[in-house]
Amino acid sequence: MPASSFENVVIIGSGPAAWTAAIYAARANLRPLVFEGEPVGTELPGGQLMLTTDIENFPGFPEPLSGPELMERIKAQAVHHGTRVVSELVKQVDFSQRPFTITPNYSEPVKAHTVIIATGAAAKWIGLESEIRLAQQGGGVSACAVCDGAMPFYRNKRLAVVGGGDTAMEEAMYLTKFASEVVIIHRRDSFRASKVMANRVLAHPKVRVIWNTQVTEVIGNEFITGLKLADTVTGAASELEVGGLFVAIGHTPNTKFLGGQIDITEHGYIKVASWRTATNIDGVFAAGDVIDDYYRQAITSAGTGCMAALEAERWLAHHGIEAPAAAGE
Amino acid sequence: MPASSFENVVIIGSGPAAWTAAIYAARANLRPLVFEGEPVGTELPGGQLMLTTDIENFPGFPEPLSGPELMERIKAQAVHHGTRVVSELVKQVDFSQRPFTITPNYSEPVKAHTVIIATGAAAKWIGLESEIRLAQQGGGVSACAVCDGAMPFYRNKRLAVVGGGDTAMEEAMYLTKFASEVVIIHRRDSFRASKVMANRVLAHPKVRVIWNTQVTEVIGNEFITGLKLADTVTGAASELEVGGLFVAIGHTPNTKFLGGQIDITEHGYIKVASWRTATNIDGVFAAGDVIDDYYRQAITSAGTGCMAALEAERWLAHHGIEAPAAAGE
Repeated sequence: MPASSFENVVIIGSGPAAWTAAIYAARANLRPLVFEGEPVGTELPGGQLMLTTDIENFPGFPEPLSGPELMERIKAQAVHHGTRVVSELVKQVDFSQRPFTITPNYSEPVKAHTVIIATGAAAKWIGLESEIRLAQQGGGVSACAVCDGAMPFYRNKRLAVVGGGDTAMEEAMYLTKFASEVVIIHRRDSFRASKVMANRVLAHPKVRVIWNTQVTEVIGNEFITGLKLADTVTGAASELEVGGLFVAIGHTPNTKFLGGQIDITEHGYIKVASWRTATNIDGVFAAGDVIDDYYRQAITSAGTGCMAALEAERWLAHHGIEAPAAAGE
Repeated sequence: MPASSFENVVIIGSGPAAWTAAIYAARANLRPLVFEGEPVGTELPGGQLMLTTDIENFPGFPEPLSGPELMERIKAQAVHHGTRVVSELVKQVDFSQRPFTITPNYSEPVKAHTVIIATGAAAKWIGLESEIRLAQQGGGVSACAVCDGAMPFYRNKRLAVVGGGDTAMEEAMYLTKFASEVVIIHRRDSFRASKVMANRVLAHPKVRVIWNTQVTEVIGNEFITGLKLADTVTGAASELEVGGLFVAIGHTPNTKFLGGQIDITEHGYIKVASWRTATNIDGVFAAGDVIDDYYRQAITSAGTGCMAALEAERWLAHHGIEAPAAAGE
């Protein structure tokens, strides 16, 4: 592929949104090019699902499968239908001139008529070595209660939630369905969450809050057994036995490489129209967790990935830009 | 289940939106009750996918599977997590009092705190026996080009599209990627579609339009081979050899049983908030094709089904309505 060729559609990302967009674009004969990224620290191509051991809620799979397995299946499907893949991160885009320019880390820049941004969001972690290790090995540390909270090994245990915003409240309420007790650990003496949510949580008989406290270590080799805590005011240390830790201190949408060229919401997510994936730049679409601060599920991301591909396909049709013939390569 | 019991969430429908909502609600311990409907004429529980032979674009399945097979898998998953199913159509709902009342065809009415409407939409057909028969047996007659147009047996053939609206234009444009020729058959002498779309289609070298004409019969036993046509002005009969027929004369969202209790759009779809499935009635949510006049894909429906379940779950949490314990039955 020469650097000067014009792509119909470039897809940036490698989660359910990106690969679903690729499946739809490929089936529409658009021969999409996906920049799936590359491993950087704890971030792997494949998105947040790469940290998920058992997925029970992706429709179509009555038997649980692992996050990496699901992603491999969706990627294989995209490739089977004619998606081309570059295993590099995109370091820069230029949306000021058409066709748009997408510059990856190592290889030559690519020009594209349409771009689908599906770079997702990164869960924020406390930053402890023990926390990351247990999260990566499916050892009872998670950044998503709705994704993982219903797993059998969390049932009737004391579960800890770290955070004080609306998401932490939602996660705590969700976990009361399964836990013997939900302990919210918060480094301040009040919640940032809305009053209604905070009051609901505080009134719940299964919820207890430990104020002015932070987690300094997650205890457990194979699986979490407890937490080391420190009082943020007095510095006093303590330990808490828990059967699970849910870190709910926010997400960072992956938009840095856009260099401010796309309108974002007040929370940093890419702004799209109502029930459409079109951004403020004509011909640029966004899908998945990079536009979603509320649901954050694999299946919702896949849905918006499909939407973005259909919109890109129709954008190309409306602009009279023809896809190359199926037998073109 | 006594008629007087209050359900956390009743889900009405049986397509990807309904079962995905059920999976999420069941995993949240809400023990959802699904009214999946019953066979009526060509309408089967399972939704429009029941007429689809090979699905290649539902992410997670690199090998094609049939529509009924996919629906069976998603339903099994919902049941496995604790969904209860009633195989009856809902004939009436009462949203004027809480809890809401849902009345099925035969068994006792049910009361529910929240309701998810996922009853889908029915493709409009010309109404010919030969058309319905070939559509049902996967014989080259379809109501969705994006779903089926990329199938190998449509490649490099003359494909017919019936219709004159925006959807017919989109479908015709989509099919130009695969067909040797796309023939639009329209019963009037001009398109109802927007001028931009119509002009784009008319200018396409692969597209031909047969005006003032209707299809009177689809020819073919196992698979379509041609169409019998009649001029709507002169009545003159003719035949056209085709390798596929795409009927694009619209959809009817299945909302009749609601008796006008929910706000709808000018096209008859249930009105929901931007990127939310909440309807104008607090506690009633809608998902799938009954809210979607644009994408109409299994994966987009599944995505909005998930959204509806999460919103219903949070609605219940905010209102302090507790799910019964997991071991409650």
